[in-house]
Amino acid sequence: MDNISRNVEEETNLSQTANVYFDSEDVHACIVTCGGLCPGVNTVIREIVCGLHHMYGVNEVLGIEGGYSGFYSRNTIPLTPKDVNDIHKRGGTILGTSQGEGGNDTGKIVDSIQDRGINQVYILGGDGTQRGASVIFEEIRRRGLKVSVVGIPESVDNDIPVIDKSLGFDTAVEEAQRAINAAHVEAESTENGIGVVKLMGRFSGFIAMYATLASRDVDCCLIPESPFYLEGPCGLFEFIRKRLTENGHMVIVIAEGAGQELISESLSAMNKQDSAGNKLLQDVGLWLSQKIKDHFAESKKMAITLKYIDPTYMVRAVPSIASDNVYCTLLAQSAVHGAMAGYTGFTVGVVNGRHSYIPFYRINEGEKKVVITDRMWARLLSSTNQPSFLNPKGTQLTKP
Amino acid sequence: MDNISRNVEEETNLSQTANVYFDSEDVHACIVTCGGLCPGVNTVIREIVCGLHHMYGVNEVLGIEGGYSGFYSRNTIPLTPKDVNDIHKRGGTILGTSQGEGGNDTGKIVDSIQDRGINQVYILGGDGTQRGASVIFEEIRRRGLKVSVVGIPESVDNDIPVIDKSLGFDTAVEEAQRAINAAHVEAESTENGIGVVKLMGRFSGFIAMYATLASRDVDCCLIPESPFYLEGPCGLFEFIRKRLTENGHMVIVIAEGAGQELISESLSAMNKQDSAGNKLLQDVGLWLSQKIKDHFAESKKMAITLKYIDPTYMVRAVPSIASDNVYCTLLAQSAVHGAMAGYTGFTVGVVNGRHSYIPFYRINEGEKKVVITDRMWARLLSSTNQPSFLNPKGTQLTKP
Amino acid sequence: MDNISRNVEEETNLSQTANVYFDSEDVHACIVTCGGLCPGVNTVIREIVCGLHHMYGVNEVLGIEGGYSGFYSRNTIPLTPKDVNDIHKRGGTILGTSQGEGGNDTGKIVDSIQDRGINQVYILGGDGTQRGASVIFEEIRRRGLKVSVVGIPESVDNDIPVIDKSLGFDTAVEEAQRAINAAHVEAESTENGIGVVKLMGRFSGFIAMYATLASRDVDCCLIPESPFYLEGPCGLFEFIRKRLTENGHMVIVIAEGAGQELISESLSAMNKQDSAGNKLLQDVGLWLSQKIKDHFAESKKMAITLKYIDPTYMVRAVPSIASDNVYCTLLAQSAVHGAMAGYTGFTVGVVNGRHSYIPFYRINEGEKKVVITDRMWARLLSSTNQPSFLNPKGTQLTKP
Amino acid sequence: MDNISRNVEEETNLSQTANVYFDSEDVHACIVTCGGLCPGVNTVIREIVCGLHHMYGVNEVLGIEGGYSGFYSRNTIPLTPKDVNDIHKRGGTILGTSQGEGGNDTGKIVDSIQDRGINQVYILGGDGTQRGASVIFEEIRRRGLKVSVVGIPESVDNDIPVIDKSLGFDTAVEEAQRAINAAHVEAESTENGIGVVKLMGRFSGFIAMYATLASRDVDCCLIPESPFYLEGPCGLFEFIRKRLTENGHMVIVIAEGAGQELISESLSAMNKQDSAGNKLLQDVGLWLSQKIKDHFAESKKMAITLKYIDPTYMVRAVPSIASDNVYCTLLAQSAVHGAMAGYTGFTVGVVNGRHSYIPFYRINEGEKKVVITDRMWARLLSSTNQPSFLNPKGTQLTKP
Repeated sequence: MDNISRNVEEETNLSQTANVYFDSEDVHACIVTCGGLCPGVNTVIREIVCGLHHMYGVNEVLGIEGGYSGFYSRNTIPLTPKDVNDIHKRGGTILGTSQGEGGNDTGKIVDSIQDRGINQVYILGGDGTQRGASVIFEEIRRRGLKVSVVGIPESVDNDIPVIDKSLGFDTAVEEAQRAINAAHVEAESTENGIGVVKLMGRFSGFIAMYATLASRDVDCCLIPESPFYLEGPCGLFEFIRKRLTENGHMVIVIAEGAGQELISESLSAMNKQDSAGNKLLQDVGLWLSQKIKDHFAESKKMAITLKYIDPTYMVRAVPSIASDNVYCTLLAQSAVHGAMAGYTGFTVGVVNGRHSYIPFYRINEGEKKVVITDRMWARLLSSTNQPSFLNPKGTQLTKP
Repeated sequence: MDNISRNVEEETNLSQTANVYFDSEDVHACIVTCGGLCPGVNTVIREIVCGLHHMYGVNEVLGIEGGYSGFYSRNTIPLTPKDVNDIHKRGGTILGTSQGEGGNDTGKIVDSIQDRGINQVYILGGDGTQRGASVIFEEIRRRGLKVSVVGIPESVDNDIPVIDKSLGFDTAVEEAQRAINAAHVEAESTENGIGVVKLMGRFSGFIAMYATLASRDVDCCLIPESPFYLEGPCGLFEFIRKRLTENGHMVIVIAEGAGQELISESLSAMNKQDSAGNKLLQDVGLWLSQKIKDHFAESKKMAITLKYIDPTYMVRAVPSIASDNVYCTLLAQSAVHGAMAGYTGFTVGVVNGRHSYIPFYRINEGEKKVVITDRMWARLLSSTNQPSFLNPKGTQLTKP
Repeated sequence: MDNISRNVEEETNLSQTANVYFDSEDVHACIVTCGGLCPGVNTVIREIVCGLHHMYGVNEVLGIEGGYSGFYSRNTIPLTPKDVNDIHKRGGTILGTSQGEGGNDTGKIVDSIQDRGINQVYILGGDGTQRGASVIFEEIRRRGLKVSVVGIPESVDNDIPVIDKSLGFDTAVEEAQRAINAAHVEAESTENGIGVVKLMGRFSGFIAMYATLASRDVDCCLIPESPFYLEGPCGLFEFIRKRLTENGHMVIVIAEGAGQELISESLSAMNKQDSAGNKLLQDVGLWLSQKIKDHFAESKKMAITLKYIDPTYMVRAVPSIASDNVYCTLLAQSAVHGAMAGYTGFTVGVVNGRHSYIPFYRINEGEKKVVITDRMWARLLSSTNQPSFLNPKGTQLTKP
Repeated sequence: MDNISRNVEEETNLSQTANVYFDSEDVHACIVTCGGLCPGVNTVIREIVCGLHHMYGVNEVLGIEGGYSGFYSRNTIPLTPKDVNDIHKRGGTILGTSQGEGGNDTGKIVDSIQDRGINQVYILGGDGTQRGASVIFEEIRRRGLKVSVVGIPESVDNDIPVIDKSLGFDTAVEEAQRAINAAHVEAESTENGIGVVKLMGRFSGFIAMYATLASRDVDCCLIPESPFYLEGPCGLFEFIRKRLTENGHMVIVIAEGAGQELISESLSAMNKQDSAGNKLLQDVGLWLSQKIKDHFAESKKMAITLKYIDPTYMVRAVPSIASDNVYCTLLAQSAVHGAMAGYTGFTVGVVNGRHSYIPFYRINEGEKKVVITDRMWARLLSSTNQPSFLNPKGTQLTKP
């Protein structure tokens, strides 16, 4: 049985006679990027190409354009060290992207891999993409092809399980500071000014949490993992009223996936028969901003000025900062070493501080989430002094 | 008749026996900031305080908090060179602001000026604010008070007439590049990707025009001064279809005041009986993005991916760049020299490259607008190669 | 006599029958960049290529690599709109550069122009380069060639006469703020901390002056146009002592061309028979820093901590800011329109706010300098409150 | 025996009856910052003050100005959450600093602590400072005072042993990219252009190594841990010659502590009898630049253009980036929890990913250094493809 057909978890070093499984001249590698943008993707592309070339003398690397469907719907493009020399200074992905999951034809993808003689497939993307990679890997194994399939996990939300941190995450938190600063300046400059900033995080509030901890200007951070409610003595409206009374202004950071159940209730309560506009209210930032404005307009107790900022695309489309560049470089080199050694069916990642190879099935077990009983969330609560929203009826606990 | 009571247009130097009208020890100056935020306001505050102190030995400068209403509803705060030493490194205004126009009681404002013995009033703000300044000036003249009223025009939209350029404008154009860059990266990274960026400019499209010229990544710039239409062979939808077919992606910049008549039509056509959501569609950026998405979804000819960015508050809440800092410094010094010489009822500004004193009534004659028959707009059209939208029925002119 | 052979000063529009002198298909343009780097050069290159292509349908544009000598020592490279699409986001020049003046063989340059059939030559560079352009123009005229020679003046020092402002200047002043900020932070953090920042400006102190005015953290600005002296009751050492005594820290900005006569004296006084190290002291920043350290070490009155920053290359190697991008675009378009209309032997530039064509001989009449009796320098003196150094023996004039 | 007198290594939780040793109202804390600047120091100060206040209700926190000597030579300043609210947005230290080691009178410091009734001392600084902290701790123990002494290790060089990473390190690596970018642009723009960048690192080359890995534009990285030589077939000069021949330009990064033995040799070989200038050559960046210029001038084989950049103060005087802000916050909270629990004589730090309390003597055992036989340095060598300089006589190994 050939080592390439085995999963990395079965054996640590499958190639029992040599550390390098592939001959350089036999390697035909390809790289594909899927899913949403994330700072650092171009750095990973660059370092796979340069790593294969400089460390192993591999010269055949192809780029697949436009995500998975590019395998069968587009021409490939050659990638040499010269082509990728400066790409890490740009945001986005030079290969283009499309949705990682669903709608792609695994059979045709593997046909393309087989027909083109590709034997190393590097796949960058989030959880949907990694699930797709797993299916491609299974199909390749079923066909008995000697092809190494390697995932590089990429999710700006930092919601990929097992691994310590997603690439591009520090850059996203850094860039989010601009939006929070602007919200703070706007809020401070008017009486009862409220700045609301929506940050990424459909299932996990990591960006919101770290951006809040880094900024120190945030009064309330709302994330999917920690439900909240608007009304009542311990609700958000009352907290806003108190904070404005004390300080005269405040900043709220909300992750895009927070408060989804509240939105559902709220929209089903509306006369929803038509409205183009109501679709927009499914965006939690627009919805919450409207709710707060309506509340204070109706209550007539307090005239507020609310400024809403959604910096999502400005956060994720920037080039990566230096620490993410180093991180991406190491991930790419780890991926290259793994593939060259004949491993397949794994995702690279740092686990407890060590570069590791993780079987696909482990990475595909749901999202990593903020644990709201853990220290980091406690630190956030202590920093913002916001309500824990644990008890909708009870009295507010001033401190966690 | 005292020189302080005259308008600057009547005579150039009213103080006929001396260049300095006020004795330093007699000066009681105050500064008030009104209207929307704009980069550079803190620099102007700093330089009025430091200019009065260092150039004339004036030590009594007060800050009025929260805009015009702060004259009668709040305590003043003392401003010394030490207090304002670092404020130019921050966005916003340390004095706070509120709407410049309407709802303020001129009588109470002038009472406060009179009662507190203030004899120099420095007023920062846009057109509404300057109109308010004019009314205050008239009331002061009516009462025969020896008070110098000086306006420093501040509108990030650059829509103040007579003067060459508003303070903070270059900073706003600079900061807008981030949003356009992000839109460009997002658009480039997907098939038929469209990035839409809304920029400030209710009546005038200067920020949108200059940001487009500076970026070179924009395919279409829509401003209030140049009407456009969506449908038809020369409409926006068709232009989008063509540009996507040619390039695979595009960036649209739209000023907040563009296309207002289209929105009105569009919203009145909707079943508008209710909807909280529909209010959001009065925002031209959200409205246009929805329209484009709907059009391509319905036409089924082309699957597009649209990303919308509204960087407004991130653009206007930043500290000013160096060139604006110098500009603000010179404006503030000009204001101080004018007031100390006994001039009143004027706004400072650079006109045809020269620092000038402009009577209030001149600055209050409507907004400055982009002249779409002028060279700068022609340069933009030549740079984006967008349709001129001049003839809704006719054929598209490929070049101006 | 052909219009191309005439100097622009002789007639305004030489082509008497048409506004466009060249047919698009006949144009063979080339671009060369010489002298030191300056932010915005790549923008100009981009806009010449795109302007010729989009506005006139010209497709033949060549890049000359490595400055003037590239005409005869290197291959040319083709420049299309696609090639230059993103170059304005990079610092430096994609064409490379070398010294603009001297050592280049005019005959061989013009031979190359003639042999390659080039009929439009765009030359970017400072005063040396423009003098070279003038010589090339004369030789072309002597040979009776129908070649348009156009200069685009580029000097980060802003020392080019006649024109209002050099391209890249605002960017340089902006970037210089980082160095001044760092110097200020370092100085503030230690007792008797002195931060010294050297900025560009061999003959003219514009960058130093504007960077000082923009920053407000500078205590003393030394430029070539305003001599200073070290010793005596009104000398720099005494001013430093006073300022440190009052404030505990200070920042000095010095232009590279300031104090040259003091350095000469100082170095000739040294035992200079050998020293590799002494060469370094011809750098005014290193020299002044050493002098200040030695003075306070010897005087034993005050222990100082001096930090020296030379940000020269970090300032001039950045991409241009938005306002410079617009400026470069307009200059390039102006150059293209001029050449296409058949003008030759001129430099483009903004003069009193208007885009103008300036004959070479006017631009080559010495450097533009800061006029120290003008308002701007007075503003600087009032801002820093530094001595005027006008009278080495007399008493210090405290201030207006 | 009181728990406060024990070292943290002796027992983990000294306070056997309660988690909190101090009563809030009894705490009199002080903070002192020593040694060179480092991004993030103000964040730590802020979070100690806010952590004590918000988490424990402590209101008495003093700032000691100007480093250790401030204990006896200056007044203290009160620090409240309001005072420190915005300081994390500024570089440097609001408390000022001075050399951490030597010349300070431990007796007088402890007298001041005792006389002022201070019972928590937070000390920020590098290895010298931590050694000083250890001595202060011993003296406090000798006198039997119930004072908690806590170190927060701060060295931008990242050379503190035991801990994973120093605060501010990521910021420094980020900021160093600007200098490397500028060097790269300058080098690329001239024929045989060489950019030399000196980065911090007297004993350890971490900043140089990570900045090189992050940038990808560096051709050679020289650090104290890896000796190099100039001459010979495997020397630096020959490597430069080869790289220039291949690529036409190159960038060299050198840590300030690299090549010290070469400088000594070189300077002792010079006629050093006098020269002020020669002192400057003890700066390895200036020295190396001169050596390279001299070599190529003498050899006459190749005309080079060398640009030298020393961004040291611009790198270390900036505010910290978001990830460092979070890191500083957690360190400060860890310090506060430790002190409040009654621990003393320890430094806080992250060790193998965990926040830990480290006894002073462990942190004072020499510098952490780059291990040049480890993976990270191998990655760097593979990335730059520079010579390993392991064998001065032998042939160059192309790859590690």
